[in-house]
Amino acid sequence: MRPTVAIDDAEQLAEAYTPGVADACRAIADEPGSAGRLTTRGNSVAVVSDGSAILGLGDLGARAALPLLEGKAALFKRFGGVEAFPLCVTGDGVEAMADAVAAVAEGFGGVNLEDIAAPDCFEMEERLRARLDVPVFHDDQHGTAIVVAAALTNALRVVDKRAADVRVVVSGAGAAGVATAYLLQEAGVGSIAVYDSHGPVHPDRGDLGDVKRRLAEYTDPPGVDVALGDALAGADVFVGLSAPDLIGADDVAGMAGKPVVFALANPEPEIEPGVAREHAAVVATGRSDEPNQINNVLAFPGVFRGLLDAGATRLTTGAQLAAARAIADRVPEDDLAEGTIVPSVFDDGLVPAIARAVRDS
Amino acid sequence: MRPTVAIDDAEQLAEAYTPGVADACRAIADEPGSAGRLTTRGNSVAVVSDGSAILGLGDLGARAALPLLEGKAALFKRFGGVEAFPLCVTGDGVEAMADAVAAVAEGFGGVNLEDIAAPDCFEMEERLRARLDVPVFHDDQHGTAIVVAAALTNALRVVDKRAADVRVVVSGAGAAGVATAYLLQEAGVGSIAVYDSHGPVHPDRGDLGDVKRRLAEYTDPPGVDVALGDALAGADVFVGLSAPDLIGADDVAGMAGKPVVFALANPEPEIEPGVAREHAAVVATGRSDEPNQINNVLAFPGVFRGLLDAGATRLTTGAQLAAARAIADRVPEDDLAEGTIVPSVFDDGLVPAIARAVRDS
Repeated sequence: MRPTVAIDDAEQLAEAYTPGVADACRAIADEPGSAGRLTTRGNSVAVVSDGSAILGLGDLGARAALPLLEGKAALFKRFGGVEAFPLCVTGDGVEAMADAVAAVAEGFGGVNLEDIAAPDCFEMEERLRARLDVPVFHDDQHGTAIVVAAALTNALRVVDKRAADVRVVVSGAGAAGVATAYLLQEAGVGSIAVYDSHGPVHPDRGDLGDVKRRLAEYTDPPGVDVALGDALAGADVFVGLSAPDLIGADDVAGMAGKPVVFALANPEPEIEPGVAREHAAVVATGRSDEPNQINNVLAFPGVFRGLLDAGATRLTTGAQLAAARAIADRVPEDDLAEGTIVPSVFDDGLVPAIARAVRDS
Repeated sequence: MRPTVAIDDAEQLAEAYTPGVADACRAIADEPGSAGRLTTRGNSVAVVSDGSAILGLGDLGARAALPLLEGKAALFKRFGGVEAFPLCVTGDGVEAMADAVAAVAEGFGGVNLEDIAAPDCFEMEERLRARLDVPVFHDDQHGTAIVVAAALTNALRVVDKRAADVRVVVSGAGAAGVATAYLLQEAGVGSIAVYDSHGPVHPDRGDLGDVKRRLAEYTDPPGVDVALGDALAGADVFVGLSAPDLIGADDVAGMAGKPVVFALANPEPEIEPGVAREHAAVVATGRSDEPNQINNVLAFPGVFRGLLDAGATRLTTGAQLAAARAIADRVPEDDLAEGTIVPSVFDDGLVPAIARAVRDS
């Protein structure tokens, strides 16, 4: 954090603090909307985690989330020009934590939830959306869903299939899996089945919580006894948001022609990318040492840049779909290929293009 | 907010975010104390307000506090090298707000409360102190008390009186008045009477809340019917932390020899400084256009620098007294005079001196 003004004499001091700030305080009291212009509020995001699902490491506690939140804040600034403030939240249950975040949200133009375990993350998001008049974005959900939708758009261009015609199998029904299945559905994907570690997310299962029950209703699960490998037979797309080494070469070989495999478990994907490439037309992972890295940093800086620029009060599905299209469209038609379905995060035009799309959505 | 590292290629990106931060997250989960070294936690302060007592403007609401909190954050960084994060807190009552601040305090090395109205500020501070293992500092209380104690130390040097021998009348029993009376008492001042707008804070009054009742017990109020002007007769020191134009030239003239007058109501003091100087030996105000500006920025950057450097878990009275002495001692003996009882906030040695004193306290 660095002051944007010099404070080297009494006059500058009086201006940066009391009595200089009194006019701005009064103006905001009179017209709360002016805070966007008079303070960082119009350009700031709280980056919030309870540390319950840190990277692939599990529940390490709120304080242990701090390096992650600080890294995230650095990316927000570097790529999106957004002032992001790390907030570790602790408390007895998700209701109390949501209450706490809501109580300190007044100074921020948006809230980015981070690495909160399912199903708490859904509850947290829902409670915050109900109480706040600024966008609430859970990167593990919406960020992942947006970049997967973008990558899938281009992968289908490469294999020349239409979204409405493809059958997608998603492995993983945590934050990322649930949000991705929802967004792909909204993007017009023909058929989606979602698996968790107990099998297909199917209405006939007795062990599903509210979120997975809703998911089972709006997706197209196969029979409740159909194994993941069997569901993959004839499928067009596999989206792994789950655990390492879950599928093998035979599973990919049994998919429909020109299979698309997104093996996004991190750092160890659902299938070794080299193995997947033996049979798949397009392979993507979360790894920086492989082609087609599907990385949330492709999405969140531009999405929040757009939301903040627009003074948005919530994150809509339309904004997410617009962001996904903008990301996909950053890969020039001539460059589009098996190994180039997503733009580089260092593409200077990426954030402005996403921001514009989100603003106009 | 600016990243401290460049993020210009995939390798730097991987280091600043995932998977680079995973080791730090794990280390903090294993040993929470390591967060001081691995993150900004060891150098960060949440600057918190509910906007209920903004400057002299009253309750303008939490969002209106943002310019003030941002200005404060800039001063924390400029003078103390401290990373301060503005937090506006809203909620239904002080308990709920204290709960919220406590729930998001895990990532900070300290909490600076700001412009919260009495008596809520006392309750907020007490609840946070009970729950947190980092120092809780309310600038309107402790910051003011420290700078007043420092200024009084030097004023008494100028008029050649001993603290134990002087009688002080404090006008104002809000956050600043209560904390200042307490700290002056602890600093060894002989006799202190505190007035609020209804008269002396006296045990026989039926209208006192808990905080003022305790205050009445450890101070030396005159009779319950004695007016402020009468209490000033023969007093050595007047400390105004209240309202404009409260006392006149006659009141000062009636004080003991070589009166000390601190008229700190802002921006309009309890008595015009020029009028006060007709009879007083030493006059101080909160104004930057007068000599002896008693400004909290003299204290808080150095106090927190010291608390953070020490990894302190609470703010002690000893630390406050040490800070006050360090501030007073920054005025060289040869410079000490009626118009020079406090150092300049631009004295480069000030923050290190306070920080050292606080660390060693």
